[in-house]
This record gives sequence, C-alpha cells and structure tokens, in this order.
Amino acid sequence: MRLSRAFLPTLKETPAEAQIASHRLMLRAGLVRQTSAGIYAWLPAGLRVLRKVEQIVREEQDRAGAQEILMPTIQPAELWRESGRYDDYGKEMLRIKDRHERDMLYGPTNEEMVTDIFKGFAKSYRDLPRNLYHIQWKFRDEVRPRFGVMRGREFLMKDAYSFDLTKEGAEHSYRQMFVAYLRTFARMGLKAIPMRADTGPIGGNLSHEFIILAETGESQVFVSQDLLDYDVLADTPDYLGDLSPIVNFWTSHYAATEEMHDEAAWAQVPEAKRVSARGIEVGHIFFFGTKYSAPLGLSVQGPDGKPVAPEMGSYGIGISRLVGAIIEASHDEAGIIWPDAVAPFSAAILNLKPGDAGCDALCEQLYAALSPEAVYDDREERAGVKFNDADLSGHPWQAVVGPRGAAAGRVELKRRATGERAELSLEDAVARIKGA
Amino acid sequence: MRLSRAFLPTLKETPAEAQIASHRLMLRAGLVRQTSAGIYAWLPAGLRVLRKVEQIVREEQDRAGAQEILMPTIQPAELWRESGRYDDYGKEMLRIKDRHERDMLYGPTNEEMVTDIFKGFAKSYRDLPRNLYHIQWKFRDEVRPRFGVMRGREFLMKDAYSFDLTKEGAEHSYRQMFVAYLRTFARMGLKAIPMRADTGPIGGNLSHEFIILAETGESQVFVSQDLLDYDVLADTPDYLGDLSPIVNFWTSHYAATEEMHDEAAWAQVPEAKRVSARGIEVGHIFFFGTKYSAPLGLSVQGPDGKPVAPEMGSYGIGISRLVGAIIEASHDEAGIIWPDAVAPFSAAILNLKPGDAGCDALCEQLYAALSPEAVYDDREERAGVKFNDADLSGHPWQAVVGPRGAAAGRVELKRRATGERAELSLEDAVARIKGA
Repeated sequence: MRLSRAFLPTLKETPAEAQIASHRLMLRAGLVRQTSAGIYAWLPAGLRVLRKVEQIVREEQDRAGAQEILMPTIQPAELWRESGRYDDYGKEMLRIKDRHERDMLYGPTNEEMVTDIFKGFAKSYRDLPRNLYHIQWKFRDEVRPRFGVMRGREFLMKDAYSFDLTKEGAEHSYRQMFVAYLRTFARMGLKAIPMRADTGPIGGNLSHEFIILAETGESQVFVSQDLLDYDVLADTPDYLGDLSPIVNFWTSHYAATEEMHDEAAWAQVPEAKRVSARGIEVGHIFFFGTKYSAPLGLSVQGPDGKPVAPEMGSYGIGISRLVGAIIEASHDEAGIIWPDAVAPFSAAILNLKPGDAGCDALCEQLYAALSPEAVYDDREERAGVKFNDADLSGHPWQAVVGPRGAAAGRVELKRRATGERAELSLEDAVARIKGA
Repeated sequence: MRLSRAFLPTLKETPAEAQIASHRLMLRAGLVRQTSAGIYAWLPAGLRVLRKVEQIVREEQDRAGAQEILMPTIQPAELWRESGRYDDYGKEMLRIKDRHERDMLYGPTNEEMVTDIFKGFAKSYRDLPRNLYHIQWKFRDEVRPRFGVMRGREFLMKDAYSFDLTKEGAEHSYRQMFVAYLRTFARMGLKAIPMRADTGPIGGNLSHEFIILAETGESQVFVSQDLLDYDVLADTPDYLGDLSPIVNFWTSHYAATEEMHDEAAWAQVPEAKRVSARGIEVGHIFFFGTKYSAPLGLSVQGPDGKPVAPEMGSYGIGISRLVGAIIEASHDEAGIIWPDAVAPFSAAILNLKPGDAGCDALCEQLYAALSPEAVYDDREERAGVKFNDADLSGHPWQAVVGPRGAAAGRVELKRRATGERAELSLEDAVARIKGA
C-alpha cells in the first residue's frame, strides 16, 4: 500500500488511557481504535496481523484433523439453562432480550451450542471421533476492561470441541490439540509453554494453559530452560499416530503458573535451568468428559447397541488477544518488532526524496516486486518522520532509498529486530526480504 | 475430506419449516443448521461456500481501491443518537444494556461508526479520497425471520463507505463500486443487473440495487435482454480512470424493479428484448452526501484552508444471503448446482465398492491429486445413496469409480450442471476437474 493513499494512520502522542506497551503501541501504530470501553475496531494494518494469526491457527487445526464450522454470536438462553450455566455465569455474560422478549445472549463460549449441533447429526459410534472448531467473535462483559485487546469485551477466539466414544479416545484428541498448539504458537515466533492448569468451574481433570514469556506478563511462571530451548517445528507430528512421546516430553519437565507452583518439585530442577519469569496465557485446553453431553442429551449408539454419551474436550486460543501478546513479547522503545510470520507487511519502502526521479523509479520497482506485502512511504514528509513511523510500525524490513543510493542503484536494507543494515542491489534486497 | 471422517451430514427428509428451495437444500445438504429463529450455524461445507463468496467480494473491493478494516458487532447507542437514527430504527435494532446499564446495540449497519473512526484520523483534504470496507456479522431483529439465510437475523455483510472532498469525487467512488459489484457477481457465476433504486429513509439521490434473476425471486423486475447478454468479465476496468462509459452502458438500457417501473419507458424497449422475471437483491449502493459527516462532526481542512464535510456513500453486499441466492438461481429437483467459483468442493469422488483394492487405489490417487478441493465418499453405503448425496450437495464434478472401471484404470466423470458423462483416465479426469 502507498501511504499517500492508504488508511494507515499513526499517532505521535501516547494515548493516556493505555497502561501497557502493547495497548500503547497498537493505538500509536494505528492497528486498532477503541469504539466503546473494551471494544475495538481493527484498522487495515491491525486487521492484516489478526488475519495472519487466524490463518496460522486455522492451518494447524486443519492439519490436526479438526474441522471448521461457524457458530453464530447470538445464542438462545435455553441451551444454557439445560447445562445449568445460565445462572452461574454472572454479569460477564451479555444478556439480551429480542423483540419477542425471548432471552438470548452474546456467546462467551460455545460448549452448549456445539453439543446441541452435534446432537442433531451424530447417531452412531461411527460418527466419532470428531473435532469441530470455529473462529468467531465472543463477548465477556468485563467489569473493568483494560490492556487493550488483551482484555477486551468483544474478542476473537478459536474454540475447538472434540467428541470421542471413550476416555482413551478423548485423551488422544487432547494430545492432538496439545501438539497443534505447540506448532501454532511456534509458527508465530512465540515460545509458548504448556503448564498444568487448575480446571476451575468448567470441571474435568486434564487441562493445560499455554503461556508465553514477556516482561510485562500478567502472572508469575516457573519453567525449565530445557522447554524454552526445544525447537517445536523440528518435529513433524503424525496426528493419527501415538503423540504421547511429544506430550510426555513437555509434561515431564517443570513448568507451572504461580497457582500450581510446587516448591519441592521446583527444587529438583537444576539451578542453572530454573527460569522464573512473567507470563501471558494465550491458549487453554480442557478435557471435561460428559459434563455437557450428558445434560444436553447427546448420545450415540455404541458398538454394542447401547447409548453412550461422548467424552468431550474444548480447546481455546485467543486470537485478538494474541496480537497484543505478540507485541508484549516483541517490542522496544521505538515500537513494535513483528515476527515475520505475522507482520502486517514484510517491508516498508522509505522514499527519502519523493519527486527525485531516481528515488521514485527505484522505489516503484521495489514496490512492484514486493506488493502486496510492502507499504510504500511515498509521503511528502521528512526522513525522520518516515524512520520513526517505520520503527513504530515494526515491519521486519525497511528498504531505504535516498538520492545518492538511487543513483548507484543501491537500497539500504535495515532489519528491524537487530538494527543491522546492508547496502544492496534491488534484486538482492528483494531476495533478502522474501527469503526471511 | 473423507466422508467417513468428515462432518458433512446430509438429511433425507425435507425439513418442514423450509418454504423455499435454497432453505430446503441448505438444510438437506448440511450447509447450515438453525440455532434460533433466523440464526444459523454454518457447517463445514456451508462455511467453505461462505468463505469463497467472501473472498471474491474482498478481492474485487481491494482491486477497486477499497481498504479493509473490521468494526466490532457491538456499538454504543450515543453514536446513533448523534445521527438521529437511534429512535428512527425501530424494533429491528437489537438493543442491549451492558452490566453498567449503558445503552449498546448490535450493529445493523455502520455509517455512524465508520464516520466516527474516520473522524479520528482525517485532518486534511490530502486524507481524501478513501474507501473503507469491512466484512462483519450484523443483526436485524426481523419480526418474522424466514427463507433461511436469505432473511436471517444474524447475517454476514460487506459494507463499504467512501469519503470524498467533492460531489464529483464521490460520483467517481460510486462508479468504482458500481463496476466492482458487476465483476463480483459475475465471478460467482451470477447475472446481477443494477437497477435504479428508491433512496428510501437513508436519503441521497444516487442509488442502485443489484438484482439477480431467479424463478423464486422475491420481487418482479423488468430488464432488457441486452444487459443479460453482456459479458462483464470481458472488460478490465481502470479504477483510477474514467468509469463513466461502463456505468453509462448499464444505465442507458432498461432495468427496473416493480417500484421503479415505468410502463412508458418499458414500451420503448423492443418487444423481443423485454424480459420480465423474478429477482433477488444481492447488493445495494448509495450516495448520501453529508448526511452522516455533518451531524457527526467529520470535517477536513480543504485546499483553501476552510473546513469541508466529506461527501459519503455506502455500498453493501449480503454475503450470507448470497449463498442462498446462488442456490435459488442454480438448482434442480435433485439438489444444488454450484457454480465452479463458489462450490464447497470442486469434485466428489464416489467409491462404489470400498474394500475393492482397485477402487480404493484409484480413489486414493484421485483424492491425493484433488485434495483439499474434493470430498471422497469412502462410506460403506449403497451406490444409490452416494449418487443422491452427490447430486444434492451439488459439487460441479462427480468422479465415479466402480470395480470394472478401476480394473481398466478408468473414471466416469459427470458434470453436475449438464449431466454429461465421460469415461476418462485418471490424468484426464483430474485435468478436466482442475481446468473447470
């Protein structure tokens, strides 16, 4: 996109309401704009990040055998009465009456609805196992929304739901999601560590949170360096095969949130490998058995002809939250440092002298070669403004073109993460950017 | 997807509540499932169609220079009080109180919100023109929702909003969307005819509906055969150049809905070219000037230093509605006939004898060559069931593999739309399917 025609606004001032780095940077870099307390509109650059995060999540869900559906945002209250959660959920649930005075709600999660949908079709054990996921906006009416998209009221979430005939089957489904989550976060340039979680009001006895480390994290975590060093993407998992070895590796090394921390076990970790840091939760997986299938009347005919309530699990990733979490994990004083896989654009092309024939020609060539993954700063602005905006926006590469370089056919290429610079020909610069 | 493991359920019985073909077929083919009155969950096959429709809309919006953003579903009531529409809108607007008793609403459209967002950034005439669009779920609390996704309460819509310094500029933006809409519908295999529309309560003086012809259409339309014969995709429009010739061609031939029909002008159309048919509205474009920019206080500094309220237009396409409309325009007694560009899968592979080594091997080869754009019917079912499900589901191609054909390395390829059949080698069958 050409900045002269794009809607990619940046702010010079830091908005007063933003308390944490990601919130501040998302507003200043023009990724989002608040429209009500805890509710945001996504501007073009922010939406590009959101879509890239979403697409990585989708690809890894599909790879693990989950199937995408899309449930609506508005749900009937009756379903939640059947499960018993309608009264339990409290004021976080946005309750609505439609024009016929029927009780509706804006879904904060979808266990009830997916169980009811599946019930409409599944008749026999041959219809199992299945794992259905959707990526949809949800609403939790937080009493004090804050931290931007990290704790908003309207948020985008991927939630998957598995249905199995037996507990053993459900454990395999759980491991599939466990491994898919490791890959999902690794592809975004994140080190997400699975940590055993309290199962809380949702119930069940198998649950992990996936937590990334960031100085500004919301909670204290304790983790073995061995887990941080492990290269997740080196494995190519066979999702139909036995995934226990991968899960066992992760669960046999120490990793715990403050609530689940065990000082005695921690003392067993060699001192040099003990990492105590701040963490941000980006995913959560649960096994909860027949907690919803039983009350909602989902049952299939088993191999012996008798009805069986499927064993279920649910698996969430906060997609809009991840955009903030990635920034918390990757920024500096000057702005955002996007990991390559989720950057809104791979490169910013900075024309230091628009109107100079050499600069314009070289920039146009670069732009043609890199579009649509480049922003072209063709504005009539001082070089300093362009440098600052590019650093703030955090594109992995900056291709800087001034009159002297242009005359020699050279581009100055800067890597945002390291500050490294190199003077390259157009072809080499394009190759470096595309190879990243 | 392998049907033995997929969540692609079909229904044998026609659901009683469905009055029109698309609603009936969408339920029977397992594209959607109703979760409340006028609210639907999209199952995997339906979601694939929805996403393909959405992606065509997106590509043509981008090509025309519009920029994608994403506004939230929940809006503050104050914005609608500023524009004066909060009280006008009536019971179709889903009104909500949050936990702090603030008045919110589920957006039925976004003129107010986009104007407010743009106001936060646009300062000067240099920030114009811009066209911002989003693709988001909306809610209209219809008193009697019916016709499935054609008239649902929660629906997916693309809405674009243009901002220009002058009326002439706004007319150019209007023409950009006019031409983009022609291309969008043509790419989906639809003949959508722009018809001059009453501007209604939204105001303004330039407005067209885009209407497709279907026997089961909701209203009567009158159109010249010349428009139906025109090949939209033969043109490659230059969106920055003068689009008047294209728009003039369309507006100089007769096309009108019943409300705007003019018998005297219709009598001027040569009798052989008069087509009177039923139509379904799939898009709507408006110019409305400063109707929202003025009351909401959006103004930019003009070239002469004086403040100017931008001239605006809005441009909608009902994306979820289109899925139903396409089926209304393209089905037969046996089921759906998907146009190639929006089909959930290009082909169904029908294994007539699972367990037969030759059939299995040939089907696996076909599936590997066509995945992920094929469904593989590997179920233990009678051939008749498989034929019926494939016809119902409407995949453009059916690749039928029986023991005799498999032994000779031959596939029977059927084109769903015409019923034409050919016996081909695997390579030729794959090439035919991919070339469609």
